[in-house]
Amino acid sequence: MLRVAICGASGYVGVELLRILSYHPQVKVTVITSERSAEKRVVDLFPHLRKYAHLNYEALHKEIIIQKADLFFMALPHTVSQEAVDFFFKNGKKVVDLSADYRIADHSIYEEWYEAPHNYRETLKKAVYGLPEIHRGRIKKADLVANPGCYPTGAILGLYPAIKEGIIDVEGIIVDSKSGTSGAGRRAEVALSYCEVNEGFKAYGIAVHRHVPEIEQEITRIAKKEVKVNFTPHLVPMDRGIISTIYGKISKEIDTRDVIAIYKDSYKKEPFVNVLEENNFPNAKGIRGSNYCAIGLCVNKRTDTLIMVSAIDNLVKGASGQAVQNMNVMMGFKETTGLEQIALFP
Amino acid sequence: MLRVAICGASGYVGVELLRILSYHPQVKVTVITSERSAEKRVVDLFPHLRKYAHLNYEALHKEIIIQKADLFFMALPHTVSQEAVDFFFKNGKKVVDLSADYRIADHSIYEEWYEAPHNYRETLKKAVYGLPEIHRGRIKKADLVANPGCYPTGAILGLYPAIKEGIIDVEGIIVDSKSGTSGAGRRAEVALSYCEVNEGFKAYGIAVHRHVPEIEQEITRIAKKEVKVNFTPHLVPMDRGIISTIYGKISKEIDTRDVIAIYKDSYKKEPFVNVLEENNFPNAKGIRGSNYCAIGLCVNKRTDTLIMVSAIDNLVKGASGQAVQNMNVMMGFKETTGLEQIALFP
Amino acid sequence: MLRVAICGASGYVGVELLRILSYHPQVKVTVITSERSAEKRVVDLFPHLRKYAHLNYEALHKEIIIQKADLFFMALPHTVSQEAVDFFFKNGKKVVDLSADYRIADHSIYEEWYEAPHNYRETLKKAVYGLPEIHRGRIKKADLVANPGCYPTGAILGLYPAIKEGIIDVEGIIVDSKSGTSGAGRRAEVALSYCEVNEGFKAYGIAVHRHVPEIEQEITRIAKKEVKVNFTPHLVPMDRGIISTIYGKISKEIDTRDVIAIYKDSYKKEPFVNVLEENNFPNAKGIRGSNYCAIGLCVNKRTDTLIMVSAIDNLVKGASGQAVQNMNVMMGFKETTGLEQIALFP
Amino acid sequence: MLRVAICGASGYVGVELLRILSYHPQVKVTVITSERSAEKRVVDLFPHLRKYAHLNYEALHKEIIIQKADLFFMALPHTVSQEAVDFFFKNGKKVVDLSADYRIADHSIYEEWYEAPHNYRETLKKAVYGLPEIHRGRIKKADLVANPGCYPTGAILGLYPAIKEGIIDVEGIIVDSKSGTSGAGRRAEVALSYCEVNEGFKAYGIAVHRHVPEIEQEITRIAKKEVKVNFTPHLVPMDRGIISTIYGKISKEIDTRDVIAIYKDSYKKEPFVNVLEENNFPNAKGIRGSNYCAIGLCVNKRTDTLIMVSAIDNLVKGASGQAVQNMNVMMGFKETTGLEQIALFP
Repeated sequence: MLRVAICGASGYVGVELLRILSYHPQVKVTVITSERSAEKRVVDLFPHLRKYAHLNYEALHKEIIIQKADLFFMALPHTVSQEAVDFFFKNGKKVVDLSADYRIADHSIYEEWYEAPHNYRETLKKAVYGLPEIHRGRIKKADLVANPGCYPTGAILGLYPAIKEGIIDVEGIIVDSKSGTSGAGRRAEVALSYCEVNEGFKAYGIAVHRHVPEIEQEITRIAKKEVKVNFTPHLVPMDRGIISTIYGKISKEIDTRDVIAIYKDSYKKEPFVNVLEENNFPNAKGIRGSNYCAIGLCVNKRTDTLIMVSAIDNLVKGASGQAVQNMNVMMGFKETTGLEQIALFP
Repeated sequence: MLRVAICGASGYVGVELLRILSYHPQVKVTVITSERSAEKRVVDLFPHLRKYAHLNYEALHKEIIIQKADLFFMALPHTVSQEAVDFFFKNGKKVVDLSADYRIADHSIYEEWYEAPHNYRETLKKAVYGLPEIHRGRIKKADLVANPGCYPTGAILGLYPAIKEGIIDVEGIIVDSKSGTSGAGRRAEVALSYCEVNEGFKAYGIAVHRHVPEIEQEITRIAKKEVKVNFTPHLVPMDRGIISTIYGKISKEIDTRDVIAIYKDSYKKEPFVNVLEENNFPNAKGIRGSNYCAIGLCVNKRTDTLIMVSAIDNLVKGASGQAVQNMNVMMGFKETTGLEQIALFP
Repeated sequence: MLRVAICGASGYVGVELLRILSYHPQVKVTVITSERSAEKRVVDLFPHLRKYAHLNYEALHKEIIIQKADLFFMALPHTVSQEAVDFFFKNGKKVVDLSADYRIADHSIYEEWYEAPHNYRETLKKAVYGLPEIHRGRIKKADLVANPGCYPTGAILGLYPAIKEGIIDVEGIIVDSKSGTSGAGRRAEVALSYCEVNEGFKAYGIAVHRHVPEIEQEITRIAKKEVKVNFTPHLVPMDRGIISTIYGKISKEIDTRDVIAIYKDSYKKEPFVNVLEENNFPNAKGIRGSNYCAIGLCVNKRTDTLIMVSAIDNLVKGASGQAVQNMNVMMGFKETTGLEQIALFP
Repeated sequence: MLRVAICGASGYVGVELLRILSYHPQVKVTVITSERSAEKRVVDLFPHLRKYAHLNYEALHKEIIIQKADLFFMALPHTVSQEAVDFFFKNGKKVVDLSADYRIADHSIYEEWYEAPHNYRETLKKAVYGLPEIHRGRIKKADLVANPGCYPTGAILGLYPAIKEGIIDVEGIIVDSKSGTSGAGRRAEVALSYCEVNEGFKAYGIAVHRHVPEIEQEITRIAKKEVKVNFTPHLVPMDRGIISTIYGKISKEIDTRDVIAIYKDSYKKEPFVNVLEENNFPNAKGIRGSNYCAIGLCVNKRTDTLIMVSAIDNLVKGASGQAVQNMNVMMGFKETTGLEQIALFP
């Protein structure tokens, strides 16, 4: 049994890790940390987690908890994660970091967008971007995996075959994403309260959202030339799910059927990517609680545009599920272990 | 008192007309029709409409009801509306048609997208597209006004100053719209049932939605050259509201502040268009139940793209409110009469 | 024009007062206070309130604002309201207090349930409980009206004729209420955040909710003997509305039709109470945004129980609408002025 | 591997059976029927059920499908189920009937409430009411189990210890239940459409709902004397979950702590009943997607009333989960097999 710790386990991402790991037969959660809830039982905060009746939150005393676990899921806030990740990594532990701190390979880009220095540049060089569909080989050998952001996961999986196969121009790509509210985290904030979010819909962070450099880094790697994207996130009155509607100018005569064939081929060995048939587009409700990414495709012949629509559950494939998938790859477990939950419908 | 009829008054658009007209001191609703609900009292179907306790639905017997009203709001299904509109118009009545039948000036484009012949081409020529912000002068003199579709209203108002002033290229415009569920009408359909829509989000009608030719017609008129747009509608789990996120390549060096100034100037006399300050973007909840269109703007300097975000209530500015606004213009009433409702928040 | 102040105008109740008063032709809002938002423009916090573009929040400096208004709506937190109400009242102003501080005539009961002393017992004696359907005569002459709580309004209006006419025993009454989330106020709290409330439903404050003594005081007055009630509030994932399902043992042979007749007679002059026909029960959606209380009734012959179901919008008839109704009665305005809004549906 | 059939597998109950059975290692679904969707693939209707990619709907040809399965889950409409159940049962198959047809032991009561004859009275006598917490011993030996209704499951589990131990009078019990919308089934109906349900809340079927005789039958059995209950169901704008708030007059001096102790003792061996600590009451969101029944308790000393609040997921413990639990008991499988899903939160 692999002993795992979850640092920052009182937010939605941490709680979702607990849910998913409860289905994993090769893993035992031995440590969960939360500064605010230290000493409290997890079931007092989250009564649905009765399977963890024995488990109490503790403060993040690194020297103590490092003894108790072999692999560390880090779900701490951005910038706070840097130092703790570095500590566990340097002391020989495997780490999956769910913060943004080790996602951006170029520290100067990180520093520009996150407005904070990166103090662990050597460790940063060792981090692998944890999108198994693209970087599986490197993840296998990695000790430190930077788990992708929720929006980037949907955007990159939606774009990957189109970029790789040169179906679309890399200029002028637009990623218009819509996320459920759990993406904003578990926080006491008027703007996140029920009466403000319910029956509303809005764009936010237009042109300046911090997931921009992450999307651009990966698309640039795939395209092998520098790419800039337009990215607009929106807040949807629902708990979970991200739908990304992505637009790219097609660079050669091609129809929807051919694009679908290319996508199916590209993802044919992927257990968690589901390319839909023509005229089918994914519904956030159809992947809720599951680790799947569903992709629908359409060539608009009138405008020479490829429209890619991807759907993920932001807390599963967009965070905790993908983290477990990365752990499975890193540890040599079967990649789908613990991740075969069917979406809850309705 | 102007006597008005609402033909097709048991759907959400008809019911919203009743709500709005209840605030209009110069109007009396004398006829409401519904084939399915003929003979029933409006309060039996809609208990909140107690102010209309005296009003019963009747079947659409044109010869009878033409005697009882001076102006006809037509909220019939597409293609069904053609003949009835023609009848009332030819018999000297004022007509505001909320169907799509008289919106597309070129009958062949209508016939292509609606897959039905247009049998009243002479009447079609008399119809004025009822977006007062653009066609107020012609609406004043019109006897037949084609009330715009909900998506086109938000899209066109969002784009108008940018196109007119040449801020953006007309090539490659993308309109990514998200609508509350009332836009789908009041219908018995599994796909519209609560458990299918709630906690879901999806794109539909990609590249083929019938509002495409309507948007293109108006943008083409403004641009004075043929324009094709990408339009993707999405279904949001909320009752009302459309947010359209619109992308256009800027055609000259300009910053957000200047764009806002141009928009403010363009709409400075408009009672129902609200251009927001920098870094502000509209929330569907903020215009719910009101006739306002709110517009937020942002130039993405990294990608040379102008992002325009417009918000309307699909049942008010996107349908019934705009229909009343058109009536006010046609009749010489004060344009805002009956339309000064504040959004219901929360 | 009556000059009115709203003290505590940045919560949902204050904002709703602004919405409703915008429809009142005899009133001008001259002062709005908010400690947290002092100096800010109301439109910066609530963009939908463009009609109040000129209005800024100010701190509650009693000596200053008393000059600027003739009537004071007090929407301050419980216990905080006491002193401010006393000040304006003693200085000859009309006051409608939306807090609980002046609702309970017996100060010792107030002190027990609110766990705070009542320091203004003389002023408390002058306060009239502001349920116009029951206390209209006294409200007319009052200078200080204690606006009822949201749950009590629905509960008392649902029970009033049944108690007054002796249809049910006063022993064993059960009030099972379900409220939309705006009843909890506009607050930054994890428990009120979208992801915690949405797709959930729960009871809270069972047997100990502070609206118990208020319901009991009024039912005791009507029954002319001491009454204790079971009251259980629940939180519904919707913005507005309270449905109270009320159970009472019938004390004499009677059927549904007769009960309805008694209720209709009892409320026949009431502009805002709507007694429904047999087999009809109110939906919270049907009164949203309106000042109506709708009541459905059913005698369960198998169990000799009368079931009364009342519906109100907690922010309108349950708070701000009723406050304006009280103002209208106090000032001799037409009682329905500003309050004739139709429910927003859907 | 037990071969199971699901008759009526295109509604929410059938689909939920497919989800749950996908986690059951001893079961293989070999037949799913649907008249409307015969020949269609399950994934065409429900894309999230990719694990059943091989499975097609077929028409309910009894003679054919009886060959293909050992145990039959019957999720057909009430009255339609009677004959099919009788057929499979008489031909030696195990049957779990999720309709109401075999729940009411007294056929005359069934006939009165369901307004239809019961044509299989001999088979009815063999049916066991499938609430394992009460009838486990008989279910073990049964070939035909009548799976309880959703409301009765919550109501009976909430009341069971209180009745059995004589804590409350059996006179005057009130069951006030609130259900998510999936309880109404997957149907094309305006009243179930998103815009009618969302932001609404209403009571329905007051005093006449068909779950009344079912609750009364079981409570009568426990009390060993005839009991009548008041039962009021309400519709909540959420997908899943039933909260039942139950009121009973306490028959002897007792406090909350003692009641909780009795409940804990009564349910101490139950894997799916969770009695909460004092001042804790269940939230529908905390059991969503799980087979748990959570119960909170409170004695109101002021009114001598015990308030019991139970929560279940109507599609799991209230239908498909309980059906699988019954199957496990009937087949001698471990009772929790396939049922250990944690609630999806948020």
